[in-house]
Amino acid sequence: MSEVKIHEVGLRDGLQIEKQIVPLEKKVEWVEGLLASGSDMIQLGSFVNPEKVPQMADSDKLFSHFTQAGKKPSGAIFSGLVLNEKGLERGLACGVDMFCMGVSASDTHSRKNTGKSTEEAVGQIIAMAQAAMKAQKRIQVSIQSAFGCGFEGAIPQERIFSIVDRYLAAGIRNISLADTAGHAYPQQVESLYAEILQRDSQVELACHFHNTYGLGLANCYAALKAGVKYFEAALGGLGGCPFTKVAAGNVCTEDLVHSLQRQDMVLDINLDKLMETARDVGSFFNRDLPGSILKAGSLINFKKA
Amino acid sequence: MSEVKIHEVGLRDGLQIEKQIVPLEKKVEWVEGLLASGSDMIQLGSFVNPEKVPQMADSDKLFSHFTQAGKKPSGAIFSGLVLNEKGLERGLACGVDMFCMGVSASDTHSRKNTGKSTEEAVGQIIAMAQAAMKAQKRIQVSIQSAFGCGFEGAIPQERIFSIVDRYLAAGIRNISLADTAGHAYPQQVESLYAEILQRDSQVELACHFHNTYGLGLANCYAALKAGVKYFEAALGGLGGCPFTKVAAGNVCTEDLVHSLQRQDMVLDINLDKLMETARDVGSFFNRDLPGSILKAGSLINFKKA
Repeated sequence: MSEVKIHEVGLRDGLQIEKQIVPLEKKVEWVEGLLASGSDMIQLGSFVNPEKVPQMADSDKLFSHFTQAGKKPSGAIFSGLVLNEKGLERGLACGVDMFCMGVSASDTHSRKNTGKSTEEAVGQIIAMAQAAMKAQKRIQVSIQSAFGCGFEGAIPQERIFSIVDRYLAAGIRNISLADTAGHAYPQQVESLYAEILQRDSQVELACHFHNTYGLGLANCYAALKAGVKYFEAALGGLGGCPFTKVAAGNVCTEDLVHSLQRQDMVLDINLDKLMETARDVGSFFNRDLPGSILKAGSLINFKKA
Repeated sequence: MSEVKIHEVGLRDGLQIEKQIVPLEKKVEWVEGLLASGSDMIQLGSFVNPEKVPQMADSDKLFSHFTQAGKKPSGAIFSGLVLNEKGLERGLACGVDMFCMGVSASDTHSRKNTGKSTEEAVGQIIAMAQAAMKAQKRIQVSIQSAFGCGFEGAIPQERIFSIVDRYLAAGIRNISLADTAGHAYPQQVESLYAEILQRDSQVELACHFHNTYGLGLANCYAALKAGVKYFEAALGGLGGCPFTKVAAGNVCTEDLVHSLQRQDMVLDINLDKLMETARDVGSFFNRDLPGSILKAGSLINFKKA
């Protein structure tokens, strides 16, 4: 099994729905905590309209802070989410290492989010990805609502494959499937990724699951078995909206790391230190985060056979 | 993939750690709710010392209630947990269909629970299982702490296999592995079950997981892939002790049914009705149960592609 990597997205997908604004200094502290734990692929934020998503208004400043001399360990990869050309420009100006961008497989979701059909959005995203690659940046293109949509329901797999085919034809081989609504189930996860790898065995696959129906880690396991290499997760399982009926947090980073380390994977991450940062996130928001390990404790240093 | 079956254990493993005693009439109501939802393998209780586990003091009465003429649908299987010969006698007298019994793979856990070493306990359990089979009853023998022990830590797989071998040599082919401490992780689950099926492809395998580290459904998925047929689960994810740091609820029945139905399995269960009963359990204990579907709602009747 190929080496897997955790892509921490809590500072972006975790925070963007929180009402309480996290000050820049606190974000810096959390990123430093993550780096100290050995996390080295971290999404610092997104480049979106600050009026629409105030929580992400300081993304440029956060990147700039770390791109200053000596503030960033060599080897660490800081990613940023961009929705359009303006975001890409901002990201290029402040030192983003890896640009994440994507389209929704659901036309309804796509139009609500971007005003564009999926078809139109794919063309735009490919052009942006190619521009970022030209600027010597890492990229990752995603397909949101790949496992089902809160508006449209089930999404035919053919729709996913047709987007994948356009990405591949454009020379883009870093592809993430995102379970925006949390509808994914393990058998579906395995079959979708297996089919993509059949189309191109060289593609580098990423996954992004929410734990809405309790299947977050089950879906990660299915993705792992299918050959997925990059696992997006959020500290503490952040991302659930506390003001709605449906708690839709991301897969919890420390729970995922814990389960992978039980199988001797991602051993370069110091779980105790990771949990310290997760605990601080919980303290900041003054509530119990949905993750399990923070409550149950870790088994990593428990007696081994 | 062979047909799978849910074995509802909430009335036993879910209730035994609850301080608030559930009256017999309420238990009857929940069993009726489960039957109405299509659940047809239900553990009604255990036959243990009523002074030690007051919640199970009325197990005989609960079985007797349903074994009265006309109170039990044909095809339904009511199981009971027995720890010793006295429990077996009580169960035979009140109409138990299926006897569940087991040993702990952890010597420490075994001695604390039964005063016997694992080795001694295996002999006793085999004799009891054979007596139950002679009485034309279904049986299921389990290995507790099969995936790790809260006292001993990791359990060498060889210890599991040596118990399995003794069960098989005694002609017992219904075997459950129980994750008493919640230590199981999916890769371990797959490898343990696969090895047992290699020893005897005719064995009927069951699993029993707790969701302590968030891996309950992931472990079920791994077990499903490995060929496990019987899945023990508890309504609402009951079983976590509200008075300890570690919440160790069972896999939640309605979450498991939901995830299996997404894959067109266990379609004979009416999930809406199952959720009604789970909701009533939550109302009785006057708290939110750990299951996800009760909070997020079901996707089963959501738009299909």
